[in-house]
Amino acid sequence: MNHIIEKIKKTKEKGLYRELRYIETAQTPRVKIKEKDLILLGSNNYLGLCDDSRLKKVAIDAINKYGVGSGGSRLTTGSYDIHKELEEKIASFKGTEDSLVFNTGYMANIGIITSLCDRNSVIFCDRLNHASIIDGCRLSGAKLIRYKHCDINDLLDKINKYKGSNNLIVTDGVFSMDGDIAPLPDIVKIAKRHTIMTMVDDAHATGILGKKGSGTSSYFGLENEIDIMMGTLSKAAASEGGFVAGKKDLIDYLRNYARSFIYSTALSPSTIAVSIKALEIIEKDDERRVKLLKMSDWFQKELEIAGFNLIRTKTPIIPIMVGEADKAVEFSKGLLEAGVYIPAIRPPSVPEGTSRLRISLMATHSQQDLEEALMKIKLIGKQLKIIGG
Amino acid sequence: MNHIIEKIKKTKEKGLYRELRYIETAQTPRVKIKEKDLILLGSNNYLGLCDDSRLKKVAIDAINKYGVGSGGSRLTTGSYDIHKELEEKIASFKGTEDSLVFNTGYMANIGIITSLCDRNSVIFCDRLNHASIIDGCRLSGAKLIRYKHCDINDLLDKINKYKGSNNLIVTDGVFSMDGDIAPLPDIVKIAKRHTIMTMVDDAHATGILGKKGSGTSSYFGLENEIDIMMGTLSKAAASEGGFVAGKKDLIDYLRNYARSFIYSTALSPSTIAVSIKALEIIEKDDERRVKLLKMSDWFQKELEIAGFNLIRTKTPIIPIMVGEADKAVEFSKGLLEAGVYIPAIRPPSVPEGTSRLRISLMATHSQQDLEEALMKIKLIGKQLKIIGG
Repeated sequence: MNHIIEKIKKTKEKGLYRELRYIETAQTPRVKIKEKDLILLGSNNYLGLCDDSRLKKVAIDAINKYGVGSGGSRLTTGSYDIHKELEEKIASFKGTEDSLVFNTGYMANIGIITSLCDRNSVIFCDRLNHASIIDGCRLSGAKLIRYKHCDINDLLDKINKYKGSNNLIVTDGVFSMDGDIAPLPDIVKIAKRHTIMTMVDDAHATGILGKKGSGTSSYFGLENEIDIMMGTLSKAAASEGGFVAGKKDLIDYLRNYARSFIYSTALSPSTIAVSIKALEIIEKDDERRVKLLKMSDWFQKELEIAGFNLIRTKTPIIPIMVGEADKAVEFSKGLLEAGVYIPAIRPPSVPEGTSRLRISLMATHSQQDLEEALMKIKLIGKQLKIIGG
Repeated sequence: MNHIIEKIKKTKEKGLYRELRYIETAQTPRVKIKEKDLILLGSNNYLGLCDDSRLKKVAIDAINKYGVGSGGSRLTTGSYDIHKELEEKIASFKGTEDSLVFNTGYMANIGIITSLCDRNSVIFCDRLNHASIIDGCRLSGAKLIRYKHCDINDLLDKINKYKGSNNLIVTDGVFSMDGDIAPLPDIVKIAKRHTIMTMVDDAHATGILGKKGSGTSSYFGLENEIDIMMGTLSKAAASEGGFVAGKKDLIDYLRNYARSFIYSTALSPSTIAVSIKALEIIEKDDERRVKLLKMSDWFQKELEIAGFNLIRTKTPIIPIMVGEADKAVEFSKGLLEAGVYIPAIRPPSVPEGTSRLRISLMATHSQQDLEEALMKIKLIGKQLKIIGG
């Protein structure tokens, strides 16, 4: 395995080697790493539900009733009554006929795309779509055509150029590393005109955008227009798992053919119980969402005033663009030293030269958390000459 | 999406349509489905730990300390101190330098194989390997060469025929649907002679075979001879997740490059806590394993005496071969009616014409459970003319 050793060496030389940091507390606005107190500003726990007492209670109740692991795959002995309840809940949340839960968003995307598309298909894929979508496209054997990020004209050019059967346009609803929102109304219009299936990955929109937090389709009033609505339960919903919601035929088909669904042990009952309760909270608690998005807008303005180069977003995701990987790592390390934890995002997670600090806010951050973090971000930013002054 | 509707119709006509059954209790020797009492004889909860009070306790303690979801991917904010503890525990359990946990066995296989092999590689793959291995091979772009099940001569022929770089021999340790054990000593010998990497998927051997239940490599005394040792925590360990154990360089490399590791929210802290405790129990409790394998041997003998066509195994997995899919479904349904739940296994999970009832025992089955189940299996087997008498 010499090829491995060589590649790790090169990775280190390029400043792309990854080291893990281990959190010693729950995923809350303030955490501990190596016993050091830190403001956490990079979590996908957008609504701050990871430590919610209601979710902890249903998880514990489910453990007491069902035990720990599920013991089998969904099609053998791993389906419980609460798996059914969750799938009904998701369908109602998304306004669809049915839904199916996968163990992760990664497995959902792989399972959906490989089941629907094959070597005769063309898949039109936003250039910044999540890695799991790309892996699903590759595994399906379809022709993978990437269009420029959120660029409808480029998408249209490519649709006119490449022909196939059972074609698909797939896009993130909210892009994980940029925090921006896909132009769904235009995508839907084009897809209908050309009879192409549409799929939206709402991993980062679920619980955040749209009526009752149900995602980007609802945000744009397109609830009945997207064929395949994928999302995750591991971010705003503070649990684990990915899902697909859509028509009964679609779900029936995936239940029978999605290999990543069939060939995996089902999620544990307690995880499922958390997801059900989290969706219930998400549907009811509009205030949490509104507060989060207001905070994000305020935080972005403050960062801009300070001179940072941001991607401006309407989501809790705030990318501070840095550029080179080593600079982003230096910025992140400086902040960690100063008491703020924001992971640096480098290639291959983002394109070369676009390394960044991906800030993400939680609804449970206090004004004091944010002001203290802001002060430190400015301080280290100046020290490292990322901003002037 | 007309292609879907057509395919579901054909699936129903062939008797291959899948319907889910929802369990209403923990995964124990006796469960309820639609309020009906059933002996469960098809679970992967081999050691009966799903309902173990020690595991429930650590799960609840972890929820109280860490909350529910992990909130981030392993390389951003989703690694906790107990993730580290689990990876150290697995390394010690497998006797390797390091280990890495993935969300599922499916994701482990995909991540490992795509990271190590590419279009220049040849992967030699047992014909009955798990679907996730096949998907990993396909996604890697390597040339996938399937050899006859456990057939060393066929493997050797194929190694002599196909040349590449960074080649891999990959096999299940215990085959999930057949319950037999791979001929690792011969595989290791051939691999060394031809400088080919070796990988074993011990999903169904972990906790069951070898010293302290550490798997097939230990069962054969080959602890230091397999390059890549994969396993799962969702079967005997009664939790969730897949892992890979091996040399430090391998793990370092996968931590940096395995896309299914990088691009997924980390498993929840409580799931991780369960895995740590389960491995501790597995290491200490040899008696449970010995009892399970003795029970399986006795049960197989009784089924053979009754005239069933079995694959004889040295594991808790006992396939009763039926043949056609509709016959296997009929057998499973008859048993369900009579109070025994054994799912029918049909294509594509097994090859055409080899549909079966896959019995699997739990260490917590009582002699009374097994005798009652045996009586009913014989009764329905006779009624359906699967056995004579």
